[in-house]
Amino acid sequence: MRQTCTLIPTMRETPADAEIASHQLLLRAGYIRQSAAGVYSYLPLANRVLRKIERVIREELERVGAIEVLLPALQPAELWHETGRWDEYGLELFRLQDRHDRDFALGPTHEEVITSLVRDELNSYKKLPLTLYQIQTKFRDERRPRFGLLRGREFIMKDAYSFHLDEDSLDETYEQMKDVYSKICNRLGLRFKVVEADGGSIGGTDTHEFMVLSDVGEDVIAYSDASNYAANREMAEVLPIALNAEEQDAILPMERVATPNERTIEEIVTSLKIPIEQTIKTLLFLVDGQLTTVLCRGDYEVNEIKLKRVLHAEQVELAEDAFIHEQLGCHVGSIGPVKLPVGMKVIADWSVRTVRNGVCGANEDGYHYVNVNPEHDFAVDRYADIRNIQEGDLSPDGEGTIQFTKGIEIGHIFKLGTQYSEKMKATALDCDGRAQPFQMGCYGLGVSRLLAAIAEQYNDEHGLKWPAQLAPYQIHLVVVNMKNDEQRALGEELYALLQSYRYDVLYDDRDERAGVKFADADLIGLPIRITVGKKASEGIIEVKYRANGEQSEWQKEELTEKLQQYFTEL
Amino acid sequence: MRQTCTLIPTMRETPADAEIASHQLLLRAGYIRQSAAGVYSYLPLANRVLRKIERVIREELERVGAIEVLLPALQPAELWHETGRWDEYGLELFRLQDRHDRDFALGPTHEEVITSLVRDELNSYKKLPLTLYQIQTKFRDERRPRFGLLRGREFIMKDAYSFHLDEDSLDETYEQMKDVYSKICNRLGLRFKVVEADGGSIGGTDTHEFMVLSDVGEDVIAYSDASNYAANREMAEVLPIALNAEEQDAILPMERVATPNERTIEEIVTSLKIPIEQTIKTLLFLVDGQLTTVLCRGDYEVNEIKLKRVLHAEQVELAEDAFIHEQLGCHVGSIGPVKLPVGMKVIADWSVRTVRNGVCGANEDGYHYVNVNPEHDFAVDRYADIRNIQEGDLSPDGEGTIQFTKGIEIGHIFKLGTQYSEKMKATALDCDGRAQPFQMGCYGLGVSRLLAAIAEQYNDEHGLKWPAQLAPYQIHLVVVNMKNDEQRALGEELYALLQSYRYDVLYDDRDERAGVKFADADLIGLPIRITVGKKASEGIIEVKYRANGEQSEWQKEELTEKLQQYFTEL
Repeated sequence: MRQTCTLIPTMRETPADAEIASHQLLLRAGYIRQSAAGVYSYLPLANRVLRKIERVIREELERVGAIEVLLPALQPAELWHETGRWDEYGLELFRLQDRHDRDFALGPTHEEVITSLVRDELNSYKKLPLTLYQIQTKFRDERRPRFGLLRGREFIMKDAYSFHLDEDSLDETYEQMKDVYSKICNRLGLRFKVVEADGGSIGGTDTHEFMVLSDVGEDVIAYSDASNYAANREMAEVLPIALNAEEQDAILPMERVATPNERTIEEIVTSLKIPIEQTIKTLLFLVDGQLTTVLCRGDYEVNEIKLKRVLHAEQVELAEDAFIHEQLGCHVGSIGPVKLPVGMKVIADWSVRTVRNGVCGANEDGYHYVNVNPEHDFAVDRYADIRNIQEGDLSPDGEGTIQFTKGIEIGHIFKLGTQYSEKMKATALDCDGRAQPFQMGCYGLGVSRLLAAIAEQYNDEHGLKWPAQLAPYQIHLVVVNMKNDEQRALGEELYALLQSYRYDVLYDDRDERAGVKFADADLIGLPIRITVGKKASEGIIEVKYRANGEQSEWQKEELTEKLQQYFTEL
Repeated sequence: MRQTCTLIPTMRETPADAEIASHQLLLRAGYIRQSAAGVYSYLPLANRVLRKIERVIREELERVGAIEVLLPALQPAELWHETGRWDEYGLELFRLQDRHDRDFALGPTHEEVITSLVRDELNSYKKLPLTLYQIQTKFRDERRPRFGLLRGREFIMKDAYSFHLDEDSLDETYEQMKDVYSKICNRLGLRFKVVEADGGSIGGTDTHEFMVLSDVGEDVIAYSDASNYAANREMAEVLPIALNAEEQDAILPMERVATPNERTIEEIVTSLKIPIEQTIKTLLFLVDGQLTTVLCRGDYEVNEIKLKRVLHAEQVELAEDAFIHEQLGCHVGSIGPVKLPVGMKVIADWSVRTVRNGVCGANEDGYHYVNVNPEHDFAVDRYADIRNIQEGDLSPDGEGTIQFTKGIEIGHIFKLGTQYSEKMKATALDCDGRAQPFQMGCYGLGVSRLLAAIAEQYNDEHGLKWPAQLAPYQIHLVVVNMKNDEQRALGEELYALLQSYRYDVLYDDRDERAGVKFADADLIGLPIRITVGKKASEGIIEVKYRANGEQSEWQKEELTEKLQQYFTEL
């Protein structure tokens, strides 16, 4: 493609609103343009990368028998009423009415549409399992669209849905899709982690996220430094520290000490000169309306998602200070587990179990207890994992210790079970002729988000650095001075030659200064730049690898052979 | 693909709402399902055909240097205000608001978005001409969605837009695109006509439609039986009949005759025993508010679009009878061009010029004039082509005579000129540094509509009959009885063999009756059916060509060679 014949509007300046490298560079290198907040046009270069990403996705999905369909973006509200999500989904759902005032949603996801379709068209176990997928534009009215393609309001997704008669079959497809997603990420050249995740609004029990590692990611991933274990920080299980009574210090008598000026754990630690590991943090929660004491070692954070799950609660919220004062006669900083009102439930994180001769509030403002020991000085109704994991913790799989990193979520897979099929009465007959609700899985992959995530991992201060298998063109052929007859002639000769060898070539035939051309080439980021410059008359061309910056000179006669070698070795 | 592993929900019954063959068969053969009025899901088979159509379109467009982009469906209202179309477009434009109450349109077309993009990113003649295209889902809130994919509310379009510095360049690209569209239609195997058309709401001057010939088409095409001439019936120019005074009868004296019971032209013709070609139909129009007499031979219809164009009028409407009575003292059926009030303009179709000794109303209820002759008995301010063409008329290109046929519009190309670029202030600098508004062309092609149009041309009473290059699979391999070990074994052997030869095979491995399988195969309409039945034990398979119904028996050893021959000869 001649650069004069396509649209690659590069920019020198970094756009003001673009906060992260991928957003800045995709704009600067002329890949995308914003049309409205979170709504983008994909210009010719971005469109080519999207096509290549889509091809990889299709190939890998079809290898495991997933079948492509295309579902509508306009979704009748009736379907969303069936699952209750018309009301639950909130402002993120774009809604509109047609000329007859009928309500529609602009699909952010397609559980309702696909379940309705399969409910109507598939009724026998003989046709199961079935996995349908589509690559399609989705709409989500994000509260705060940002980071370019990473959090847009109109974006391209691959979404797949699997249907099964039983959980075993769902489990099998789920594991297969987990593998497929890993293969796709590998083929796209991404550094990523498969992370245990939270179901969120789509729901579901077993669920994993595919996180592309990046400092600009908004999610913290806890991973093992010695195994494949990885989880959303909030989801990572914390193993109990083994309790070895013999190794513990002797229990000392509990004492009440005045702490008139100490209000935070840090102040207590400083004032009483004890390690923070010996402090017991006490929080009061309203668990489905019931006041509950929650304990955790002072250096850890209570995780409300875990608390909710452990207590099988619908709602968990911190009690307000005024309410605490009314119940216990002291303020929130002074509460502790000793001598609590009769009948108040005490839930403690495993970390509290191994505290020996610890410190806690005395339920009296201005006082703490020291030499406090669980079971000895206060009772615990239940120990459980209710804290956030921290760097240095043991990995839950027993291998290595936990490290943190940040990630961009590009894929999310869920076992939905029967939650949609039951609400929508979608059933198949089993081999005994009984109607069973479908077991379902759903598998999302952000296609336009992948484009940005790859750009985020493949760039330097000069621009993008596409992996060869995804670059919009394989080769950037740059003629330094189009007004020089020898250079132009050699440029044209090589352009024709490379095309005849079926290379995808972007040919910079513009009448621009050399500096502009080289800067644009670095910005655009094709894997190989072939420069025709002053040595054109000697038949010498300069080759530069974008990945490592290496440059060398080739005789033009060597070109096709050396290129073949380069692309074969990739 | 094993048929047990995909979703092809065939139906025996014809769905009640489906009026035409393509709609009925795409539903019955399990290609599409309706999700809401005019909103469809493309099931696996339809998706495969769509992909193949898209590939043909992309190949042909890229051959002429058109560049693919992807623009957003969500379009800010501000852009539509710039062109005035936010108000003009009416109910067909789906509109919605985001969470901040900002107005958006769901794109039915992308002139505004692309003009805005090019306005911002391209400013020099050096980068022109440029043709950008996309294949994308479009939305249009049709008043009456019907005919399945032919008139839907969510549909797939290829839309292209070209930008030029001058009209010559636009003309060149326009002609190129007209060729490209013809090539695409030819590759898709369509019988079609390129038709001179009306600009419609997108506007534009020069414009052509690509019509797929079909009795279910809603447009009447006038075409020459001896040349490539074709036009929308309403648009077709009618040549004046040559006036040869010498060959005409002698002028007879005009007479007033009583016609107390004759109110229509047919009644006059019968009562006065004259040929209809000798009657003069007189109509009164309000042309931009001014009463104007419009004449036409009695056997022809006045064409208001032509009238409007001839008179350079904004608005043209038939005067109401009450108003006519007030002005002329008679009712609408009695008006005529003789002795009209002074100053009333008379516009006559060319057909009136050759009427000799004709009949017309006398501007007096119950009377007509006979032996009326134009110029002799009444004056005509202007003769022009203001009637609809009819079958048997001379073709406007002078070759052959006009025939009518019906067509489905699948493509529409326009020269937009500067109408969008001027309103949106989109300019490029010419070589003298002067800002010029872009000359623009736009080129639409209905991708999902093509799917239906092809189905409409390729079917019989048993089902669809895809051209081989578009069929969702090339080969339908049907094992008659999967419970028969020999048949199943041979089926599996051939399935593996055909896959190894890279054929796209749909393998009917279902446990169904032979009748069901054969009926489904005919419905689905793949070009070749290979049946493994009772002669499996002898290694004999039956081959049936869907196009002509021919059947023959092959030895299994001949299979790959004969298939290669078949697909090579296509």
